[in-house]
Amino acid sequence: MSVDIPDSTFSRVVIIGGGFGGIQLAKKLKYKEVQVIMIDRHNYHTFQPLLYQVATGGLEPDSIAYPLRKIFMFQKNFIFRVAEAISIDPEKKILHTNLGTLGYDYLVIATGSDSNYFGLKDLENNGMPMKTIPEALNLRSVVLQNFEKALQHDSIAEQEAWMNFVVVGGGPTGVETTGSLAELKNHVLPHDYPELDIRRMQINLVESSSRVLNSMSEQASIKSEQFLKEMGVNVRTNDRVLSYDGEKVTLASGKILESKIVIWSAGVKGVTIEGLNNTQIVPGNRYKVNVFNQIEGYTDIFAIGDVAAMITEDLPKGHPGVAPVAIQQGRHLAKNIINLVNDIPMEAFNYFDKGAMATVGRNKAVVDMSFIRFQGFFAWFVWMFVHLMTLVGFRNRLVVFVNWVWSYFSYDRGTRLIIRPYEKKSSEEGYKFEE
Amino acid sequence: MSVDIPDSTFSRVVIIGGGFGGIQLAKKLKYKEVQVIMIDRHNYHTFQPLLYQVATGGLEPDSIAYPLRKIFMFQKNFIFRVAEAISIDPEKKILHTNLGTLGYDYLVIATGSDSNYFGLKDLENNGMPMKTIPEALNLRSVVLQNFEKALQHDSIAEQEAWMNFVVVGGGPTGVETTGSLAELKNHVLPHDYPELDIRRMQINLVESSSRVLNSMSEQASIKSEQFLKEMGVNVRTNDRVLSYDGEKVTLASGKILESKIVIWSAGVKGVTIEGLNNTQIVPGNRYKVNVFNQIEGYTDIFAIGDVAAMITEDLPKGHPGVAPVAIQQGRHLAKNIINLVNDIPMEAFNYFDKGAMATVGRNKAVVDMSFIRFQGFFAWFVWMFVHLMTLVGFRNRLVVFVNWVWSYFSYDRGTRLIIRPYEKKSSEEGYKFEE
Repeated sequence: MSVDIPDSTFSRVVIIGGGFGGIQLAKKLKYKEVQVIMIDRHNYHTFQPLLYQVATGGLEPDSIAYPLRKIFMFQKNFIFRVAEAISIDPEKKILHTNLGTLGYDYLVIATGSDSNYFGLKDLENNGMPMKTIPEALNLRSVVLQNFEKALQHDSIAEQEAWMNFVVVGGGPTGVETTGSLAELKNHVLPHDYPELDIRRMQINLVESSSRVLNSMSEQASIKSEQFLKEMGVNVRTNDRVLSYDGEKVTLASGKILESKIVIWSAGVKGVTIEGLNNTQIVPGNRYKVNVFNQIEGYTDIFAIGDVAAMITEDLPKGHPGVAPVAIQQGRHLAKNIINLVNDIPMEAFNYFDKGAMATVGRNKAVVDMSFIRFQGFFAWFVWMFVHLMTLVGFRNRLVVFVNWVWSYFSYDRGTRLIIRPYEKKSSEEGYKFEE
Repeated sequence: MSVDIPDSTFSRVVIIGGGFGGIQLAKKLKYKEVQVIMIDRHNYHTFQPLLYQVATGGLEPDSIAYPLRKIFMFQKNFIFRVAEAISIDPEKKILHTNLGTLGYDYLVIATGSDSNYFGLKDLENNGMPMKTIPEALNLRSVVLQNFEKALQHDSIAEQEAWMNFVVVGGGPTGVETTGSLAELKNHVLPHDYPELDIRRMQINLVESSSRVLNSMSEQASIKSEQFLKEMGVNVRTNDRVLSYDGEKVTLASGKILESKIVIWSAGVKGVTIEGLNNTQIVPGNRYKVNVFNQIEGYTDIFAIGDVAAMITEDLPKGHPGVAPVAIQQGRHLAKNIINLVNDIPMEAFNYFDKGAMATVGRNKAVVDMSFIRFQGFFAWFVWMFVHLMTLVGFRNRLVVFVNWVWSYFSYDRGTRLIIRPYEKKSSEEGYKFEE
């Protein structure tokens, strides 16, 4: 079976993945003389930077998802399929998918990244990731279910185990998630669970390096750690998780935390596809690409965003796995593909780093820009504005804005809902959902 | 194990179910000298009248769900547990739940209703219900997945089978669902699927009686049927579904419809609980109650809302299974329980029927009130206003309002998202969700 796509006299660009990079690339190819085919496992784009707000009951999942077909509604040279890439045949210029085969002239791998457990098998089995909307929803269910479970126990020790949260990884996701959990603890849960002594709820952030947000300035690290501590988070830098059996978290320092939930945000790895020779895959499971985003050894296969490592003297590990890199690489690659089609030399990619930011809680955020660094209320305001503007779609922006304004004044989280209870059967068996 | 609930010197009222009836009852017992314990399978209240809008991509599921704990946040005599009722021991005055036993002084069964397939086993297996938020989300996934599936076929006949929708039951839910599908067909799907000839999409509404909305006035029936036909729905009154094997729907008229989806809204039955003698259960699986909502044969066990049938000379089948009945019975029962506690005679329930309404599409609704009937734009406006005001919670009203205004001007449905793909393995095996 082959994917039933009409032939075109134009060159065909196949894009795997509708993330930040993929959609920018496809958009920039509008009105160009190419046929653009995108496949993605989902029929929507996920705004990953706000997944943690879904997981902690602050935003509705549908507000940070946007239908991919809608983005390209008026783009005549664009075709979309919900499909999964299985393998590439670079000789025949064919992509195998679960729907059949798909020929390409140019292939762009924009598959992004997935959680990296660095070989810690029991954390992969018992920890909870947060890279997709279903994963964020599972987390939301478990966070709330654990308080319902705590109510079923008389013993303080057992109650505490259900109210003990461990977040691994002190990057932006870890910091934002623990900050958000702390706000639940401080403003929402005492009202919801008057029978529990919510002061006993523990929120632990484990970070192996010496500071949280270690990709940002030291000033940002110090300030965000201070914010977290003010909010009651136990920041455990210079420590790391060795194992987790679903009940006990063992840290390298020897400390043991009794906890029913470990949220894993300690690292990512690129999502690669079978079929290319694997010599071009570098640590972090990323494709080594040249300055044109061409994967080493190929002229017609590209990688952009999280799955690409553009290794240069200045950047021995490639660019950071953040949305602005994917967006800029997507836009730039569109130009280079058009150049290729027209036999014009390609131009090297240059990353314009606008800075980085992270939010810890209400009125508490940190912003690093090349010319200025600031923290606190204004940083928090800038963070919200930038995220609102980056969200795809007017409806989504409006609904997120409404939710944020409402939460700000009410100190509440509106979506503390266990829509589909999440139950872990065992490490091996996988998961069960309610119908 | 017993549910760990603190003892109280006050009488204990146990309410099973946080639907319209249950929450009104509990609210009215605020500040009263009783201990109120509510259990529900979910931690949220579901606004069922808008489930169809979730199923058709118009509203976010979280906007029509409201955390039960939040409703009663400041009610000191209220205790909530996510639990399922298993059986009643009326002699010992004990309710058995999945969390253990729970003693009661007064027990109120407010469990509502579930889909009734009237013994049609293959419809129960292959049809899709829409009584809960997870069910509405499954439906949303299937509606969208079917168009993605249609794209995988060359043959027009196969494409048509994937684009053929059959809705069974011409009550408000059936009418509103087919109307909403028709709007997707007319305004959204042609843009999303330019490769498909969406004009071939068929929407069938099968109703066994001679008219749709047969619980409303004939004027409302005629007008809503006219609206549906204008929008392109095949209204099949005086016909009913005999069987559905997942591919072919066989109607009593002999007509066979090839369709991959059958949405079941043809009837409901009360959700009863084991342990009472079953003589008091009447057709529709409802408890026969007296004018005080006491279940026949008991003085301390009550039923309200969909699961109660208050049979009188005027109402041989009891009240209709609609929200206003549940709301009024809940409020009224609160007074009677206080009367019982204080040894004051109870008062008989009197239903104040404010009328009925249903919406078909934009600017198209029908309203029946005792003194006036009207249809069209103003009816549609009234429908929206009443539903907005009945929604629980300011945040939910605001977000629903934003979505409606946005949809009205954009002719769009923002949440056409397949968050958790839905796959039916077989009639026997049950369902599979993506993690």
